[in-house]
Amino acid sequence: MIPALHPPASNAMPVGEIDTPALIVDLNAFDANLALMAERIATVPNVRLRAHAKTHKCPAIGRRQMELGAIGVCCQKVGEAQAMVAGGIDNVLVTNQIVGQRKIACLAALAKNAWIGVCVDHADNVEALSTGAVAAKTTLHVLVEINVGANRCGVDSPQAALDLAQRIQAAPGLRFAGLQAYQGSAQHKRAFAEREAAIAEAVRRTGETRTRLAQAAIDCPIVGGAGTGTFEFELNSGVYNELQAGSYIFMDADYGHNLDAHGQPEAQFKHSLFIYTTVMSTAAGHYVVDAGHKAHSADAGPPLVADFSNARYDRPSDDHGIITFTGDGPCPALGDKLRLIPGHCDPTVNLYDWLVGVRNDRVECVWQVTARGATR
Amino acid sequence: MIPALHPPASNAMPVGEIDTPALIVDLNAFDANLALMAERIATVPNVRLRAHAKTHKCPAIGRRQMELGAIGVCCQKVGEAQAMVAGGIDNVLVTNQIVGQRKIACLAALAKNAWIGVCVDHADNVEALSTGAVAAKTTLHVLVEINVGANRCGVDSPQAALDLAQRIQAAPGLRFAGLQAYQGSAQHKRAFAEREAAIAEAVRRTGETRTRLAQAAIDCPIVGGAGTGTFEFELNSGVYNELQAGSYIFMDADYGHNLDAHGQPEAQFKHSLFIYTTVMSTAAGHYVVDAGHKAHSADAGPPLVADFSNARYDRPSDDHGIITFTGDGPCPALGDKLRLIPGHCDPTVNLYDWLVGVRNDRVECVWQVTARGATR
Repeated sequence: MIPALHPPASNAMPVGEIDTPALIVDLNAFDANLALMAERIATVPNVRLRAHAKTHKCPAIGRRQMELGAIGVCCQKVGEAQAMVAGGIDNVLVTNQIVGQRKIACLAALAKNAWIGVCVDHADNVEALSTGAVAAKTTLHVLVEINVGANRCGVDSPQAALDLAQRIQAAPGLRFAGLQAYQGSAQHKRAFAEREAAIAEAVRRTGETRTRLAQAAIDCPIVGGAGTGTFEFELNSGVYNELQAGSYIFMDADYGHNLDAHGQPEAQFKHSLFIYTTVMSTAAGHYVVDAGHKAHSADAGPPLVADFSNARYDRPSDDHGIITFTGDGPCPALGDKLRLIPGHCDPTVNLYDWLVGVRNDRVECVWQVTARGATR
Repeated sequence: MIPALHPPASNAMPVGEIDTPALIVDLNAFDANLALMAERIATVPNVRLRAHAKTHKCPAIGRRQMELGAIGVCCQKVGEAQAMVAGGIDNVLVTNQIVGQRKIACLAALAKNAWIGVCVDHADNVEALSTGAVAAKTTLHVLVEINVGANRCGVDSPQAALDLAQRIQAAPGLRFAGLQAYQGSAQHKRAFAEREAAIAEAVRRTGETRTRLAQAAIDCPIVGGAGTGTFEFELNSGVYNELQAGSYIFMDADYGHNLDAHGQPEAQFKHSLFIYTTVMSTAAGHYVVDAGHKAHSADAGPPLVADFSNARYDRPSDDHGIITFTGDGPCPALGDKLRLIPGHCDPTVNLYDWLVGVRNDRVECVWQVTARGATR
């Protein structure tokens, strides 16, 4: 391994000695986020958390979520599922369609050692999954994905869902496991009422589909969906029974724009994830830091500067960014280290091989992001 | 290693069997790009290419650039330099300030096995580099970075550059190596005349600084700068002698917007880098592919769809994107694979562990991106 890909820190090291850029996790905030989600979900009987591992890509965190009551994890890709199973997670739902013989063979092989679920929205894919499961002599648990308003994947009618469910029931190597009903586009609607309305519609469509299947004597063991932005609506819907929130563990600048029922920024979960970065030039009258596009994902805008209320991160290049300060107040010096709040946690975590857990100004743990880059 | 982090292809495999998402390199275009740059630079005596490895992060490509005449490579980070030296490159200039004791110790250690250069714009950093080089019993070659208009790093006056050069000359373990004069903000100015004017100003400032140093009997072995967008101006400037272009090997959608002297899209270098992606859902009346924010960097906008003139990539999520087709023409089917042209090559390459070289519909080579993630 290239030395620079080694961990940026070791246990008990003072925070200031962590090499940069690095992702650090404020463990007090992180622990509080995990506990709060577990507590909320426990208020409604028969609803479980199936935390989305695409946020952390880290089996150590998935195991912690399961210790607190999660039934398993969600993944987006076969590679993520491989990393989770290799890291000791025995219950993984891939919340997408997996298409292609090579990918399906890998997925079916995983089912030798774990409960593996996957979603479908096309009859050809049911057949391909069945072929793969039979070849691997395993069983895949298959959910029908329905389009509940996000208009990405999923079938559009209860009848189409029923047709697929019946195909799954008839297919060797497969077991029908329920409905995938994720409303992704609702998560970042800023107004509480907009999120509420979007999920009300998703609940309506999902309930209607569940009823159609029940009329054909098909039970849905899993009705899955929800994210950090909307989970309380699905939690109390009476229809969903597995919630797939992921970002709640870290939060990010983008989620910070969501408003609660009173029009205030949603703040029940705390920022726990930070990019730690060093000021490496001050010659041009501003502060150039060593974190650019390769250290944070630009898709939801630039990171925020933590700890300095009068600072702004701007003009990112591949490997650097510029911090400007307005008004009076303390400014950093050459070599000082700062914390940035990522614009979007999931694709930012995917840029790092390590998460450095810190508490009381010391490194407490270093977790490997073993599914980093597992986009296949 | 997690199976999904294994190479997505093997030699001689038909292109259609490459697992997705994967980065593929069209070797005919790639070879032509490397040959064209070498040819252009050879037209001016005493100017050398020092190709920027931040684009490819791949020693196999760096070695190929040196076989074609490059004197060495540039890196942005110590970790990249470590990967290049480990991969057989013996001449590396880090085109930034390296700040922090741990980073400097790593850099100085590298100089045991390679010519290592680095830039400074602050007297404290000269002292820290000297301390590190003395401790490692090595020599670091140090360039003074001057601000030639990009307003990121670099000192602002010839006198300030002279002061730093003299400090470097006096510092144990360091050798003054010249001037770093990169005009980064000029690379993506769309109009030819704008780029020309920006580099004319950079040349003026650089020449003035070089003269000021010459008056103090200080020679500049290296006067470095230039990128793919402007290199012909620096090449013919009579001032620069090392050109640091990187993107020319791959190109990207963003560079495709630059215009030449006749107002036409700059097209001397060809797109050689593509994201290979699979259509994994067609249920909602559009084509969902398995490449999202974790498969391409969003900082310069979405990827383009290659091979289909009537297609557009849109609505990226973390792991997926949606392709819509307008008008008539061929459309893909579930499971088909498509090529996307990345919006921005450098941070996109940083998301992948492998580059798959293809020619005549077959895989010819699989290169490891050993400096992937080496942001420290």
